[in-house]
Amino acid sequence: MEDIPVKPAAASASFSGPFALGSLSAPDQASFPALVIPGGRVLDLRAALAEPALTTRQIFERWDVLLPRLHELAADPTAAWRPLEGLRVQAPVEPRQVFQSGANYRQHVIDLEVAHRSPDDPRTVEEARAEIAAIMDRRAAEDLPYVFIGLPSAITGPYDDVVLPSWAEQPDWELELAVVIGRPAQRVPVEEALEYVAGYTIANDLTDRATVFRRDMKAIGTDWLRCKNAPGFTPLGPWIVPAESIADPGDLRVTLKLNGDTMQDESTKDMLFGVARLVSYISQTAQLL
Amino acid sequence: MEDIPVKPAAASASFSGPFALGSLSAPDQASFPALVIPGGRVLDLRAALAEPALTTRQIFERWDVLLPRLHELAADPTAAWRPLEGLRVQAPVEPRQVFQSGANYRQHVIDLEVAHRSPDDPRTVEEARAEIAAIMDRRAAEDLPYVFIGLPSAITGPYDDVVLPSWAEQPDWELELAVVIGRPAQRVPVEEALEYVAGYTIANDLTDRATVFRRDMKAIGTDWLRCKNAPGFTPLGPWIVPAESIADPGDLRVTLKLNGDTMQDESTKDMLFGVARLVSYISQTAQLL
Repeated sequence: MEDIPVKPAAASASFSGPFALGSLSAPDQASFPALVIPGGRVLDLRAALAEPALTTRQIFERWDVLLPRLHELAADPTAAWRPLEGLRVQAPVEPRQVFQSGANYRQHVIDLEVAHRSPDDPRTVEEARAEIAAIMDRRAAEDLPYVFIGLPSAITGPYDDVVLPSWAEQPDWELELAVVIGRPAQRVPVEEALEYVAGYTIANDLTDRATVFRRDMKAIGTDWLRCKNAPGFTPLGPWIVPAESIADPGDLRVTLKLNGDTMQDESTKDMLFGVARLVSYISQTAQLL
Repeated sequence: MEDIPVKPAAASASFSGPFALGSLSAPDQASFPALVIPGGRVLDLRAALAEPALTTRQIFERWDVLLPRLHELAADPTAAWRPLEGLRVQAPVEPRQVFQSGANYRQHVIDLEVAHRSPDDPRTVEEARAEIAAIMDRRAAEDLPYVFIGLPSAITGPYDDVVLPSWAEQPDWELELAVVIGRPAQRVPVEEALEYVAGYTIANDLTDRATVFRRDMKAIGTDWLRCKNAPGFTPLGPWIVPAESIADPGDLRVTLKLNGDTMQDESTKDMLFGVARLVSYISQTAQLL
C-alpha cells in the first residue's frame, strides 16, 4: 500500500481568541494581509484599513496603534468578510530578521545528543544523559541561551511543498514556537520582554541533520547556513495569534503529525529559556524589529 | 601625550575605474544613492534617474539594466555634480542578507588559532601551525567553505563611531572584502559565479573575541550572533566599485591603520576560497540577492 501524504486543509487550523492574522492570496493574485476569525471567515486588511500596499510586517511595526482597530474590525459583522476556502495561505509575515534558539528543549537535546553520540564514546547511555543534563542546568543557571541567525528567505507558507535539496541526506522536522515582535526591543530586561511581543505562530524548523556539525573543523562546531537555511526550510504559520490571546507562552502544546502518525508532542514548558528570557537575551546584542 | 584618533576624511578614499556608488546625506536630510567620480564629485542618482525613492539596493537589483546608464552619467559633465565635501557618507547599501566566510584567510587562521590555543595544549607552536595548515588544505581540497549568516542591522557607515557594548571584552577589527550581488544567484557553478557580482567594497568585521566560542557547549562551537552582530559591528564602505573595474578580486591589497599604525596589510590572494567559489557555494543553499 502506498503512503498517501495527508495535508491538513487550511481552514482546519483553529486558534485561541477573537482573531488571528495571516497572509492570503486568491489564485493568480497578489497576497494580502488578512484578519481571520473563527469559522474560517477572513477580511482583506488592505481594503478594510484603506491602505492598498499594507503588509503584515507593517501591521506588526505599528502594532500598538493598530491592535484596537483590529478588535473593532473583528467585531464588525458588516465588514467585507469572505470565506477562507479557496484562498492560498502564505507565510503570515516576511520578517527582516530571524533568530533561532538552539539546544533549548531540555529533553529533546538530551535525546538528540545521546542518539548522535560518537560510536567510540566510552560513556554508557545513562552517563551521557546525566552529563548533558548537567551542562544544560549550568547554562540555565548562568542565564546563557544560545541563539543563531536564520535567513528570512528560508520561510515558506505552512502548506507549501518543500523541495529538499539533493545534498540534504537526513532532513528532519522540528516544530518551534515562533515569536513575532511588535515594538523595537533593544536591551530590554526579562521582566518587560513580553511587552515587546505582538503575537505567536508556529514554525517547522527543518534541519538536515547530516550537515549540522563541521567534522573538518570541530572548534567551529555547527554550520547553520548549510543545515537549516535552504529555501522552504522554515514553513511558517498559518496564523499569528495576538499575544493577548495566549495566557502563557511557556505552557503551549506542540504536536506534529506525519501522515496521521504523531511524531512530536511536547510542551513549551520544557524550554530551558522561556520567551521572555530569549527576547531579553537577543536584545542585548541586536535590535529586535 | 594623548592619543588622538585619526579619522580619514571621506574624500580621501580613492577607487579604481571611472565611478563608484555610495549613499550620502546632507546635514538633517535623507540619504540618497550617489554616483561618485574621481576628484570627489558626486551626483544624486534619485534626481539624475528621476526616481525619487531609489535606493542603492534597488540599483543592484537592476544592475544589468542600469550599468550602461551609470556609465553615461559618469561621462556627462553637464549633469548636476556637486562636491562630496560636507556630505555624510553612509553605508553604501542596506542588503537584505549578509553572508560571512569564516576561517578563510590561511595565514590569519593559523595565527589566530596558535595565539588562542588552550594553555594546556600539549603541542609546540610549530606542531600546532602544521596541524592547522593541514586542516585548511584538506578543506580547500574538499571544496567546503564555511559560511555563516550576519545581521544587516550590524552595518553602519564607514566613518561612524562604533559604540562598544559593555559585554564586549576583547573587541577586535578585521578587514574583509565585501561582495555585492547584482543578479539572483541560485545554484550557480564556480565558472559563472563572478557574473553575478555587481561590485566590491570593504567591511570592517568587528568581533568580540571573548565571546566567539561557547565554552559551555563545545560541540555547538561558535556564537556568531553574540560576537559579531551588535549594532555598528560592520562598518561598510565608503564606495562600491563596479566589478568591471576590478581586474582580479583575488589580488587586492587590504590595509588597516589604527591611529596611523598599520595593523593589517594583507592580500586577498591568501583567501583559501576565492570570491567565485564562495558565491557558488552559498548559492547551493540560499538564493543570493
